[in-house]
Amino acid sequence: MIPRYEHPAIAGIWSEKSKLEKWQEVELAVINARTWTHEVDAQIFSTIKSTLESNPADITWWKEEEKKTRHDLQAWVSERVRHLPIELRPYFHDGMTSYDTEETAFLMMLKESAGYVCEACGKMELALSTLAVKYRYCPMMGVTHGQHAEVQSFGKRCLTWYQEISTAKQKVSDAFSTLNKSRLSGAIGNYGGVNPTIEEQALGELGFRPFYGATQILPRQLFVPLASALATLVSVISKIAIDIRLGARSPRPIYQEPFGKNQTGSSAMPHKKNTILCEQLEGMERMALGFLMMIMQNIKTWEERAIEQSSVERIAWPDLFHVAMRSLTSCTKVIEGLRVYPDNMILDIVDSKGTWAAGEAKKFLRPYLAVFGVTTEDVYRIVQLASFNVFEPSVSARNIREMPPTSFEVIDDWVFKAVNDFGPSDWESIKQIIERGELEVADNLANTKEQVDEWNAALKKFFHFSSPALLEWQEIFLVKNRLEDEGTLFQKILGC
Amino acid sequence: MIPRYEHPAIAGIWSEKSKLEKWQEVELAVINARTWTHEVDAQIFSTIKSTLESNPADITWWKEEEKKTRHDLQAWVSERVRHLPIELRPYFHDGMTSYDTEETAFLMMLKESAGYVCEACGKMELALSTLAVKYRYCPMMGVTHGQHAEVQSFGKRCLTWYQEISTAKQKVSDAFSTLNKSRLSGAIGNYGGVNPTIEEQALGELGFRPFYGATQILPRQLFVPLASALATLVSVISKIAIDIRLGARSPRPIYQEPFGKNQTGSSAMPHKKNTILCEQLEGMERMALGFLMMIMQNIKTWEERAIEQSSVERIAWPDLFHVAMRSLTSCTKVIEGLRVYPDNMILDIVDSKGTWAAGEAKKFLRPYLAVFGVTTEDVYRIVQLASFNVFEPSVSARNIREMPPTSFEVIDDWVFKAVNDFGPSDWESIKQIIERGELEVADNLANTKEQVDEWNAALKKFFHFSSPALLEWQEIFLVKNRLEDEGTLFQKILGC
Amino acid sequence: MIPRYEHPAIAGIWSEKSKLEKWQEVELAVINARTWTHEVDAQIFSTIKSTLESNPADITWWKEEEKKTRHDLQAWVSERVRHLPIELRPYFHDGMTSYDTEETAFLMMLKESAGYVCEACGKMELALSTLAVKYRYCPMMGVTHGQHAEVQSFGKRCLTWYQEISTAKQKVSDAFSTLNKSRLSGAIGNYGGVNPTIEEQALGELGFRPFYGATQILPRQLFVPLASALATLVSVISKIAIDIRLGARSPRPIYQEPFGKNQTGSSAMPHKKNTILCEQLEGMERMALGFLMMIMQNIKTWEERAIEQSSVERIAWPDLFHVAMRSLTSCTKVIEGLRVYPDNMILDIVDSKGTWAAGEAKKFLRPYLAVFGVTTEDVYRIVQLASFNVFEPSVSARNIREMPPTSFEVIDDWVFKAVNDFGPSDWESIKQIIERGELEVADNLANTKEQVDEWNAALKKFFHFSSPALLEWQEIFLVKNRLEDEGTLFQKILGC
Amino acid sequence: MIPRYEHPAIAGIWSEKSKLEKWQEVELAVINARTWTHEVDAQIFSTIKSTLESNPADITWWKEEEKKTRHDLQAWVSERVRHLPIELRPYFHDGMTSYDTEETAFLMMLKESAGYVCEACGKMELALSTLAVKYRYCPMMGVTHGQHAEVQSFGKRCLTWYQEISTAKQKVSDAFSTLNKSRLSGAIGNYGGVNPTIEEQALGELGFRPFYGATQILPRQLFVPLASALATLVSVISKIAIDIRLGARSPRPIYQEPFGKNQTGSSAMPHKKNTILCEQLEGMERMALGFLMMIMQNIKTWEERAIEQSSVERIAWPDLFHVAMRSLTSCTKVIEGLRVYPDNMILDIVDSKGTWAAGEAKKFLRPYLAVFGVTTEDVYRIVQLASFNVFEPSVSARNIREMPPTSFEVIDDWVFKAVNDFGPSDWESIKQIIERGELEVADNLANTKEQVDEWNAALKKFFHFSSPALLEWQEIFLVKNRLEDEGTLFQKILGC
Repeated sequence: MIPRYEHPAIAGIWSEKSKLEKWQEVELAVINARTWTHEVDAQIFSTIKSTLESNPADITWWKEEEKKTRHDLQAWVSERVRHLPIELRPYFHDGMTSYDTEETAFLMMLKESAGYVCEACGKMELALSTLAVKYRYCPMMGVTHGQHAEVQSFGKRCLTWYQEISTAKQKVSDAFSTLNKSRLSGAIGNYGGVNPTIEEQALGELGFRPFYGATQILPRQLFVPLASALATLVSVISKIAIDIRLGARSPRPIYQEPFGKNQTGSSAMPHKKNTILCEQLEGMERMALGFLMMIMQNIKTWEERAIEQSSVERIAWPDLFHVAMRSLTSCTKVIEGLRVYPDNMILDIVDSKGTWAAGEAKKFLRPYLAVFGVTTEDVYRIVQLASFNVFEPSVSARNIREMPPTSFEVIDDWVFKAVNDFGPSDWESIKQIIERGELEVADNLANTKEQVDEWNAALKKFFHFSSPALLEWQEIFLVKNRLEDEGTLFQKILGC
Repeated sequence: MIPRYEHPAIAGIWSEKSKLEKWQEVELAVINARTWTHEVDAQIFSTIKSTLESNPADITWWKEEEKKTRHDLQAWVSERVRHLPIELRPYFHDGMTSYDTEETAFLMMLKESAGYVCEACGKMELALSTLAVKYRYCPMMGVTHGQHAEVQSFGKRCLTWYQEISTAKQKVSDAFSTLNKSRLSGAIGNYGGVNPTIEEQALGELGFRPFYGATQILPRQLFVPLASALATLVSVISKIAIDIRLGARSPRPIYQEPFGKNQTGSSAMPHKKNTILCEQLEGMERMALGFLMMIMQNIKTWEERAIEQSSVERIAWPDLFHVAMRSLTSCTKVIEGLRVYPDNMILDIVDSKGTWAAGEAKKFLRPYLAVFGVTTEDVYRIVQLASFNVFEPSVSARNIREMPPTSFEVIDDWVFKAVNDFGPSDWESIKQIIERGELEVADNLANTKEQVDEWNAALKKFFHFSSPALLEWQEIFLVKNRLEDEGTLFQKILGC
Repeated sequence: MIPRYEHPAIAGIWSEKSKLEKWQEVELAVINARTWTHEVDAQIFSTIKSTLESNPADITWWKEEEKKTRHDLQAWVSERVRHLPIELRPYFHDGMTSYDTEETAFLMMLKESAGYVCEACGKMELALSTLAVKYRYCPMMGVTHGQHAEVQSFGKRCLTWYQEISTAKQKVSDAFSTLNKSRLSGAIGNYGGVNPTIEEQALGELGFRPFYGATQILPRQLFVPLASALATLVSVISKIAIDIRLGARSPRPIYQEPFGKNQTGSSAMPHKKNTILCEQLEGMERMALGFLMMIMQNIKTWEERAIEQSSVERIAWPDLFHVAMRSLTSCTKVIEGLRVYPDNMILDIVDSKGTWAAGEAKKFLRPYLAVFGVTTEDVYRIVQLASFNVFEPSVSARNIREMPPTSFEVIDDWVFKAVNDFGPSDWESIKQIIERGELEVADNLANTKEQVDEWNAALKKFFHFSSPALLEWQEIFLVKNRLEDEGTLFQKILGC
Repeated sequence: MIPRYEHPAIAGIWSEKSKLEKWQEVELAVINARTWTHEVDAQIFSTIKSTLESNPADITWWKEEEKKTRHDLQAWVSERVRHLPIELRPYFHDGMTSYDTEETAFLMMLKESAGYVCEACGKMELALSTLAVKYRYCPMMGVTHGQHAEVQSFGKRCLTWYQEISTAKQKVSDAFSTLNKSRLSGAIGNYGGVNPTIEEQALGELGFRPFYGATQILPRQLFVPLASALATLVSVISKIAIDIRLGARSPRPIYQEPFGKNQTGSSAMPHKKNTILCEQLEGMERMALGFLMMIMQNIKTWEERAIEQSSVERIAWPDLFHVAMRSLTSCTKVIEGLRVYPDNMILDIVDSKGTWAAGEAKKFLRPYLAVFGVTTEDVYRIVQLASFNVFEPSVSARNIREMPPTSFEVIDDWVFKAVNDFGPSDWESIKQIIERGELEVADNLANTKEQVDEWNAALKKFFHFSSPALLEWQEIFLVKNRLEDEGTLFQKILGC
């Protein structure tokens, strides 16, 4: 994972250092297990353990050795045994094949990482339930197919998000149960080096039970439920992010991502409050799906094993965890800092013009109008017609619909007439604020009162004294001027 | 493909009947080629050709035979030769292996299907360029990150869609060039049965050149550019569909899908005009990606061949074509019938309050304000501040933001107060229309004037005479009553 | 799914007829639930139930109606109510939105299909455990990285397959638990039509509990564990299929797919026993991955719902089940009929020349040779060296390695010399059998003794009397003649 | 990408340093273009250019700034302009939006990376054509469905590999043509900041032409052909790798991966020469497919843009290039060092017992046997029967097939009897070599003659003097002892 999206705890777990420590834990557990069956003297075990623990692995030495042998675990065994007295060396990695050591260590890394994911899910659940409770009675339009449907509380929408996270978290946590078995059963899985008793004892010490019937490696299907649960979690977060993006749209956001006081919206467009965190969460989903595909394909290997899966697991697993953690922390931050606009939610209800009760209205009218000979089907059509009626455009709006402008020159007159005919009485704009020097301090920007006053003074002076500039300034707010270069596009693309 | 999404021309191309016809074309081309080298007498060829063409394959007979031999091409050869005089039978499929026949036939099916796709792309291009020209001067807000950005014409947005389709079409058409080579080079690709001269001659007749260096089959990578181009096309259409969905959202659609006069919006909500066609196009994209993945995996086979790819190709290819054709025809229908609302586009411009010229304003002010000692960075901050100022909520709106209601009982008072404080003067609703019997005929619904008059009469009578019903009716439009059952959700999910 | 790969039971479950029956079950359960709360009279329910059950849905009528309304469920409601007396019609689908009906019916179809998959898994487990027990003591070479590793029993390899299927089956079965919840909570999931009590009662009757916190639809993540488990199952079967393909390879198969007596191997090569069933299983895996990808993408929808997922679910789910059932039945057939060759397994052990005990040998020598000053590392190298020594090629073999032939002309002499120098004493071939007329009846081909005798007679006569033909026949078995046309390839590709 | 699989040139191109340099190139090209239209004085351009080029970007400073603004390009603009005199600052990034700069820089990184891929393809082509020419006349068995098919030269198999690489390389190279267009058309693509003339001039200088009809970003479909070509290339290499793995299998490899003298085969099994490089290439393919899926999903964005694609492109593109380069260099290394065993290829031909000419034999016999009344179909069956006859197992082999051993105790007797009955006369093994002290120096291991002599001496002494040890040693080579622990598996899994 590139540093930009890395989660430090995940990076730690999947570091070389952490991996070597876990390899050592496995090796020591096997030697320790052999003290129980008296294959190895307890004193020997404690000497090995203390010697190795006081001599952490030298990663540079190990890497050099690996270049020679092209085998990372063998190289590490060499690194380790060089710290031991010659007579104790044979006890280390005795009768084991590489994957006896690596497999369990790998499982430990997966479980540790998944633990962080569950914890982060918990934080997101808390943020969502807090929001749900706060807005339990705050009405908004429920939306299906992008259309205002029926009225609901915003708290209820938060609950549906909460249940998505909660369900996904449960699946991550269930996936643990598939990961509580490991193996130490040798090169082809029939106990060529370590016998079943030692396996059970050593794994038990590390928190695992034996999986019976492995080859040199555990079946790769055992890892699929975790990968699938993580990809599901990231997809679910992406769904929540889309709902936030949809609610944050111009011209009437019902909520918005938190926006830092010094944050820059866009290099060209200083007025933007972009939903960049939420959009990025969709990027995370695309990656999670890709990583899941990689891991799914690992199920297939040849006979008692081949090593196709190894490179994939070194890359896809940590990256999938980074993506999951990024999604969780980023979305939790958005939820915790979400700016909610109940006033705009009300305007949506107003604008839906009672259709939010259309279903109930239909149900109500049915028995009563039956008396007047109106059928059930007709009641449906009555309510539908009323709904069409309320949204019927005015005559002037309808005229505008049917007559789009036909040249650059007429655009602004057309707009002006339209606004006059059916638009709002007052057309407020940054044009007026700036040309009149009427800027005011804004809560969520870091400007001081003094600075704003100074700016206003400069603006007033400038526009007052420079009437040619004022004319030029007004040109800026002519729509036609903004569209002029589109001519190139029409000409290059359609030749007209 | 299930009948619901099937395209008839594609279904025809991929039918058993069509496949058998193409197999026969290949076999005949080989025999014909051998007449050129005098391996086969011209008379023999014409007898075989006319006999087979006047005896079309009996599909039932063939299917029965296949059950015995478990080999579809062999079974078909038996079906064919039974129509020939014994002495001519050895000339048919002579020295050929099954894939010599099947490969070229398969290529013919791919190319024929891709031809339909290109043609349908052309229709969509036409629909889009027509729309672009019509709305060339019609201004609307350009939108980035869901936020109003700068002003553009709707014609220009249509151009960006046009270029997406046009570029994708080009890629489908380019993919043909990768499909103009085939092979007849025998069981392991070194001309065990047909020699290079015959191969070149026979393929030439069918419109192909030889691919040198195949195994028993063509390298499967040759099919990837077409699959990738089709999946790209379907994805591009899904992008356009999303833009349409985003523009069709309540409360102020700038355009909408065509909607049939007798179409039913939703069984519960008669007022809905759902963007179901556009939403389905995203489903098509999900499938196209899946089919591409299937076809990509076919690149890999063992040595001179194995048959892993066969089942995948029988399913994924026709289905990918069905999905592509469905996407094209469905989206073209939407574009052709798109209802465009320039009036609402203008309201968007108004609501963006001049910020659509923020970039130009910044550029304009920079040199002038420099005179007053205002730096480039400060000009950015001035325009940003003006933009925040114009969107500053009113005091009453701000109060509502900060005080969501705290129980069911207070909801409607809170809404009522909010509307009074900062909302529109007139709160029109289906409630009034229905209770006053003021329904009017609507253009895009199939009701007659007489029917509507009758309804109005019934409604007036009912509400006039039944005051308890009126009270009950008014309850329907209390928001709190609509939220009541959400209590169950809070209780079941959060326990509160 | 195309008929070739269809499973009849799955096709039945996903037929239109079956879907409509399940829709009706859901509708009736809701009406019945309302009799418990006395919203509906018990008599009314039983009249509706008996009327509808004695008038099965007319699919043609329904399809016609759907064309008008473009809404499949609404059209079906119209089809159903036309059979009811007018006064009972309002009770049917009362207060429900389409997905209230469809969702639970869909879950019923999923669970029914998954039941078939589990049952088929059980059959495959039985086939595998039978094989495991039969060959419990039959030794073979374990293979890692395609290389002979250590010795194991064939029974043990069967156990590793058994555990793969058994683990995958468990996951399919676990996925049921995620599918035991449904919803009837209306257009946006806050009980607009059906209240929570009716929901619980009606779902209970259908075998489900309520999922709290849905929107208009259940969260699509609930379906992922089943899709993931099915794709895993199909992948696992593909892994077993690969092991079978690898064991069935020329020149020394240790097992082979069953082969029908009348089956045709290849149209060009009559001697082949191809592993076509196992190869097809890899095709199934490619498709399963693609279908999983489609279903994963369905997690994401807009707000209280949009309909992106619908088309995908209509196609990907039945097809995924067909693929899973095909994989299971096809692989079970292979396992049940597997031809096992312990004699060849022994030859493998012989050819591995004791290296199968190399690990144990190393372990054994370590303490003893320490006495002679041989270190642990050197013991490793001794055993490695011995292993290289046993596989050292003979001098003549080495000569051949270093001197590939340099023209067509010398090929056969070179081969002949090589065989003479280090090959088997007797070079048996179909050449001799055919030219001497020494065909014998074979167990797994359907030829009669009489027929074979006749053939032998014909062959003997022919080769005895026609010496020019004999010479020509011998040419066939010259290697160089088989390679001649490769010249074209070198020329066309490398220009040499 | 983790360091283990990183390609240094790719890492360089995608480093922060390289990206910032390319951003600067774009900015300078725009200013330069403005000198042509006299918007900017040539002197100003050269001062800006020289100042910035002599002050490379300070990455630490930039990163700090980005933390504040949360906008990487804006932060970099600040870093750059601080080096300029105040009066020149307005010229830098003037009128541009971030993606005007980033898009073209990104294209430059893609093209540079793809250049390396093409170059590496060229090396692989060379290695393959060299091998093809060397083994042009060296016969081997062609293999279809894992079965010996017809005879071909090994050179011809190399040609099929060569054509796969060559075709895939062509597609990578074709993808360039889709990448020769870029844009500088502002925040929504209608030239808000830079006009069409400047765009054309500036892009021309950077080697691009304008793409007309973009939004704020280029359509993401433009990147798909490259991603698809790269994934195809990696898949094609994986196909070649599988062919090598299949040829390298015990007991009779026809070729093997190069193996380093000090390389360690397996920690448990010192005798192994594992195909680890080739197996890893399949891992690469799994990843390439995943990265392609990520990039395909980027086609879809909202309206004039959203930023979903950004994180994906930062990760998936460099990783896809790393994977492609790793695949190419690793596979080229294998091809260049491939150890080819023509002797074993001959043994395969011998073992296929003339069936490699079965097709020709059939063709030959058909007309001649017709004279004796043998039909075409019967000739097929004759050759098939001959093929079955030559592979008929001996009676003793057949007995062994039907009677697998029934307990641990009888295993070795059973094996011994089998070998006696039908096996090779001499059962050579590492057992003999070691117990007799007959180790010999091996070419591809780094042991000296002296060391080997010493080892032999130690072995001889030990086995000569310790007869109990010899008995124990012989126990090691009893098969039953190797299978003993499998009892646990049967007991745990099947309970028997």
